[in-house]
Amino acid sequence: MTTLQDCLARDAQDPLRGLRKLFKLPEGVIYLDGNSLGAMPVAAAARVVQAVTQEWGQGLIRSWNSAGWFELPQKLGNKIAPLIGAEAGEVVATDSTSINLYKVLSAALQIAGQDAPKRSKVVSERSNFPTDLYIAEALCRQRGYDLHLVDSDRIEAALADDTAVLMLTHVNYRTGAMLDMAHLTAQARAAGALTVWDLAHSAGAVPVHLHAAKADFAVGCGYKYLNGGPGAPAFVWVHPRHADRFWQPLAGWWGHAAPFEFTPDYRPAPGISRYLCGTQPILSMTALECGLDAFVAAEAVGGMQAVRAKSLALTDLFIALVEERCAGHGLGLATPREHGRRGSQVCLTRKHGAYAIVQALIARGVIGDFRAGASILRQAQDRPGSARTDDHDILRFGFTPLYTGFADVWNAVEQLRQVLAGSEWERPEFNQKHAVT
Amino acid sequence: MTTLQDCLARDAQDPLRGLRKLFKLPEGVIYLDGNSLGAMPVAAAARVVQAVTQEWGQGLIRSWNSAGWFELPQKLGNKIAPLIGAEAGEVVATDSTSINLYKVLSAALQIAGQDAPKRSKVVSERSNFPTDLYIAEALCRQRGYDLHLVDSDRIEAALADDTAVLMLTHVNYRTGAMLDMAHLTAQARAAGALTVWDLAHSAGAVPVHLHAAKADFAVGCGYKYLNGGPGAPAFVWVHPRHADRFWQPLAGWWGHAAPFEFTPDYRPAPGISRYLCGTQPILSMTALECGLDAFVAAEAVGGMQAVRAKSLALTDLFIALVEERCAGHGLGLATPREHGRRGSQVCLTRKHGAYAIVQALIARGVIGDFRAGASILRQAQDRPGSARTDDHDILRFGFTPLYTGFADVWNAVEQLRQVLAGSEWERPEFNQKHAVT
Repeated sequence: MTTLQDCLARDAQDPLRGLRKLFKLPEGVIYLDGNSLGAMPVAAAARVVQAVTQEWGQGLIRSWNSAGWFELPQKLGNKIAPLIGAEAGEVVATDSTSINLYKVLSAALQIAGQDAPKRSKVVSERSNFPTDLYIAEALCRQRGYDLHLVDSDRIEAALADDTAVLMLTHVNYRTGAMLDMAHLTAQARAAGALTVWDLAHSAGAVPVHLHAAKADFAVGCGYKYLNGGPGAPAFVWVHPRHADRFWQPLAGWWGHAAPFEFTPDYRPAPGISRYLCGTQPILSMTALECGLDAFVAAEAVGGMQAVRAKSLALTDLFIALVEERCAGHGLGLATPREHGRRGSQVCLTRKHGAYAIVQALIARGVIGDFRAGASILRQAQDRPGSARTDDHDILRFGFTPLYTGFADVWNAVEQLRQVLAGSEWERPEFNQKHAVT
Repeated sequence: MTTLQDCLARDAQDPLRGLRKLFKLPEGVIYLDGNSLGAMPVAAAARVVQAVTQEWGQGLIRSWNSAGWFELPQKLGNKIAPLIGAEAGEVVATDSTSINLYKVLSAALQIAGQDAPKRSKVVSERSNFPTDLYIAEALCRQRGYDLHLVDSDRIEAALADDTAVLMLTHVNYRTGAMLDMAHLTAQARAAGALTVWDLAHSAGAVPVHLHAAKADFAVGCGYKYLNGGPGAPAFVWVHPRHADRFWQPLAGWWGHAAPFEFTPDYRPAPGISRYLCGTQPILSMTALECGLDAFVAAEAVGGMQAVRAKSLALTDLFIALVEERCAGHGLGLATPREHGRRGSQVCLTRKHGAYAIVQALIARGVIGDFRAGASILRQAQDRPGSARTDDHDILRFGFTPLYTGFADVWNAVEQLRQVLAGSEWERPEFNQKHAVT
């Protein structure tokens, strides 16, 4: 049996342990929801104050140049690029994931419409993140495509000579299952389809290799594993072979070749910069940069390879401890055991009572989250034609190797054990004494 | 002749004078560029720090509910509504002006396509803000409409039975000329066309009456006269008669009727909330609220009527002083003298040397901005088919009654006089002694 001492020993040997101090977490909290909103980098408060009081308050309009505001989308994009297997100059941080998905899916359909006009389908996974499906649904309606949703084990089989675009999320938000990007992209290419990848739950969580996979388009989120703050701008990548080919539909002035000429006709900027649209929220961009700088610091201690190794060790440990210590309480495992198919989260299933368990854990300072399955199904019976979902609810726990340690995992499972056993809360002592160093 | 003493006397009697202390401006600066980036509300720094350290850092994911992050678009929209003649519940703060324009112009074309399928034109002003024209150009291409650009005095004449949508910016960014919203909207309605108004240079600068004008759609900017901070989220209004009629194309999860059900099918929220798309940049939203709160404070001292009265007095004074004190230096006036046709800025024209004059003023702490006309024309000769523009450059000065006083105007013109006369810089003393109180 694994003990807390074993976990503390692993923390002591963890090469990423020093990164923990780059983040501020509330006392007494074990934060396992960084897959929903990443923790606050210590640097963020001072940096945002500087942006407000100095850059805005003192610099005023001059800061567009003097503080480099205009270049933030490209500057931050260049910090994201190495995390996703892209090159400098190929990524911009901007807008929201949903809006960026609209841009790239729209471009992909425009390319498909020109190169393969008889292809009529966008294939995606039924359990893809809903907003991705909403955007795809709206675009498919508008452009006369059929949105074809399949289960995750039927993706390959669904690729055919009528497939225009394969649009997938790399790591599933609900189960933590990771798709094989290289293999599925190769299959899509073999079928003559373009690929659009949503990296919302993979950028900063698992190494991503967009170029190696020969992917076509990608988008991702700034406020989950990239720790950019609530609603931080998202990012967008387009393979250079496509970037200059079309206007994206949200053709705003920040994507213009010469935005300050104020000409009435649109001339798109070369490369990825044409995927910008309107003026970006600078204060939120500023906070995002602090999140990205933690990954710059991580480079010195092994970078994304070390992050991935620790992520798998943390999730392996969590699964093992839950199975050792929480057996007999109706918990199942939604996340794949196989490393190659696992993101950086572990999702437990339970037919009833998952919501109350998650709430009880939060009350004890162990923050994960609840995703409905069974409860949605019960509602859906009243609304025919609605969501087909799992008949189990989900307890979701995200593991962010930059600030989560092995003792955190042990203590989180101990709290889960106590909640399931209906025990009084034995407050863990580790927060002050051990893990937070 | 008007004297500095006269101006100081007017400041002393100004009912809005007390609002000046709600803003922080750099010492020695007369800021006449609030039409490009509004000044920093004093409250913004502490509020954003709270959002970063408490709401994000301590509250983490819980703050979506406990700090009210989810309701910010509607909450801020309700603070914008009275400034533009809309009702509570009809406005959301979200995304950028360009993206919001895409949403509403797209919806307008969808309505036109259904109600008046033979109408083929979107009419706009040739000198409309370029990003509005870019968005319209992209949408018109996509939907098979003709974007018909006319000079501002030909708008009415251009309305015909082939006009689907009249898309205009209320106050022109380059000249400060204000269009007659009520009249043009009535003419458009009489011609059977829908109206889309961009309020980027009017919301918070002049009273706007969307309902009274019977307008159909409007968008506007958060970081100009609303003082929301660099790249602050924009806003969008849709008349209730249209709001529930269509999906807007950027159908993301924040616009879903039940975003937390995570159903794979899109069901738009009722009303204006369906014009939301993805997760919003909360830190930038938080700063925007501080800017809007200055207008809440202004309500107690006369609200937008008092703001408008002072704006006209400031711009009248500026025009009169420039004509009294800066004559013989080749300056013209691009902004209408007629009150009903003037926004809250004054634009001077000059055939040559405007850029250097603006730079010299900025060096002396008088911040306005330069907009090319003649210089663009010179470039355009090398690029046939490009912009048709004015053959004069523009010196642009924006007047924000919340924080600009009459003595500021006097001192700004005095600096302009010195620059034009090639005089040594006589540093004004007012900043410390008089105006900044």
